[in-house]
Amino acid sequence: MTTLDIANKLVDLCKQGKNAEAKALYSEEIVSIEAFAPPGGQKEVKGLAALQAKSKWWVDNHEIHSAVVTGPWPNGDRFIVGFHYDVTHKPSGQRIKMEEAALYTVENGKIVREEFFYAGGA
Amino acid sequence: MTTLDIANKLVDLCKQGKNAEAKALYSEEIVSIEAFAPPGGQKEVKGLAALQAKSKWWVDNHEIHSAVVTGPWPNGDRFIVGFHYDVTHKPSGQRIKMEEAALYTVENGKIVREEFFYAGGA
Repeated sequence: MTTLDIANKLVDLCKQGKNAEAKALYSEEIVSIEAFAPPGGQKEVKGLAALQAKSKWWVDNHEIHSAVVTGPWPNGDRFIVGFHYDVTHKPSGQRIKMEEAALYTVENGKIVREEFFYAGGA
Repeated sequence: MTTLDIANKLVDLCKQGKNAEAKALYSEEIVSIEAFAPPGGQKEVKGLAALQAKSKWWVDNHEIHSAVVTGPWPNGDRFIVGFHYDVTHKPSGQRIKMEEAALYTVENGKIVREEFFYAGGA
């Protein structure tokens, strides 16, 4: 698959809420970088298992009221996707709107790096 | 100015259509990278003069009906901004909707690199 194929597939799966199925698009050596370290977590994690643990933490701790996915916008072996979430943070009960952009890098047909861009604390 | 200060200033100026005033935010050594080489142009240009020439080409060749700027979304010394344009390409008379994401890198209080992400030819 080309970078644009991977980008479109990722966006399609995220739009359908099938984020878990997207793991097939990722390298086992994936590096995932947040703008800020999540509570009790790290700014940067490596490997598919760590990525899935982070994803599980997100799903377990947030009730998703709506998710809007925009893009992808490609440039060479990289692409950007936009995410807008309306969620309730389950531990606090606080409902928040979040928006972020994600920058993905592809090598040998797999996503090897994802970097999330957003304002604020976490 | 911090990276977020620069990001907010750039977005404010672009929202006001004062893109030309944004040059004060850029390094003299700015590297500007397109997803695809523009007609008769290069994918990558260096220096503030080349950046301004590219900007002038854009303004001279497009009638802008609307421009929506979203973001910025920061991560460390980088930030992403979204652009949605409704323009008429003056030479062909064709009206087109364009969307792209731009990734900026800041060093020593100036934007040193801008990379545009978008689909299609150009």
